[in-house]
Amino acid sequence: MRISELAGAAGVPVATVKYYLRDGLLPPGQATSATQASYDQSHLRRLRLIRSLVEVGGLPLAKVRQVLAAVDDPDPDPYEAVGAALAALPPYVRTEPPFTRASAALDAIGLAYEPDAVAVAQLDAALAGLEAAGRPLDVDALRRYADDVVGLARREVASIRHSRTRQPQQVADVVQDVVLGTVLLEPIILALRRLTHAALFREREERGGDGQKPAANR
Amino acid sequence: MRISELAGAAGVPVATVKYYLRDGLLPPGQATSATQASYDQSHLRRLRLIRSLVEVGGLPLAKVRQVLAAVDDPDPDPYEAVGAALAALPPYVRTEPPFTRASAALDAIGLAYEPDAVAVAQLDAALAGLEAAGRPLDVDALRRYADDVVGLARREVASIRHSRTRQPQQVADVVQDVVLGTVLLEPIILALRRLTHAALFREREERGGDGQKPAANR
Repeated sequence: MRISELAGAAGVPVATVKYYLRDGLLPPGQATSATQASYDQSHLRRLRLIRSLVEVGGLPLAKVRQVLAAVDDPDPDPYEAVGAALAALPPYVRTEPPFTRASAALDAIGLAYEPDAVAVAQLDAALAGLEAAGRPLDVDALRRYADDVVGLARREVASIRHSRTRQPQQVADVVQDVVLGTVLLEPIILALRRLTHAALFREREERGGDGQKPAANR
Repeated sequence: MRISELAGAAGVPVATVKYYLRDGLLPPGQATSATQASYDQSHLRRLRLIRSLVEVGGLPLAKVRQVLAAVDDPDPDPYEAVGAALAALPPYVRTEPPFTRASAALDAIGLAYEPDAVAVAQLDAALAGLEAAGRPLDVDALRRYADDVVGLARREVASIRHSRTRQPQQVADVVQDVVLGTVLLEPIILALRRLTHAALFREREERGGDGQKPAANR
């Protein structure tokens, strides 16, 4: 397809596609004349990944580049390759290891982890934030959250392709699946949580308000 | 307490406290001399709220001001007051109503909502992002996420104080509870999800790799 068709299929301006091409985020198409090139499904897929990272994930281009490097030249071990890509995703926390709060909490709830994983740093920063706000999260409360999350996470991992052969292309597909599943589904989960809060809160305030009015009336 | 004690208790530099005082984010203390003032627990609580919003939530000060306005001068209806505060929290999406994707999805899964709530806009943007990435989320998948979230949300709402009397101070307490529960607990949930993914993924890759090595060995 031509550059205008590629841009149209991804829903972005042609100027944006040209910018990504100049910047090397998007590989060049197959030249068909001195001024034209042809693009294929791999370009469309890459363009959609970049847009998800920028528009939904809010990643700066330097971090997008880091994710793409992990997709293009993946570690042969899918676990390591996925870890390298996820390390470029927000939230960006400034804490340094050792992540003693998070390690102690994860040990207590019995969840296996890599001590220097970015998600451990993120958990550590979040636990520190709760402490600083005067609302430390105890192990039982954290365990309840972990229990809530495990069913959802199990279903999600089951939906990711399994790269039995560890060929770079297959590992790259897995990395891209996980990155998109992280960037695109986290906002879904959080929006549903906020909406469920609102629905339950409204229901409770109305019940509490006069003890009569059922939530279904509003 | 003195300004240095207030800063120490909240774990922030004195210069930051002075900046918040000048900027009106933090109300002035009780003057004890021409150059000194005394601060109390309400200042410490306010300072901790600001730090949570800035450091964990990543809010710009204009949005912090919006949250504080909803805490200081709450709508008499706690539901409306909470909504006004949550409207200032990220993610900031640019979509405009009507939020047709989100409305259709929420109607299909049977979750009650206010059509113009910010969380509906956030859900709409997230669903649009999945579509743009070529991975639309169907109603069944969304319902499974909603089912996963409801248990957690129910427990959280039960933990929020109930403002039966609708006195401004009590509504303000509820608003602050909900804001902190949103800003501080969302990163906990997401970090646990990523860590659980990693643990399950590692387990699966190892089982799939040679069919022998148990996950517990790594």
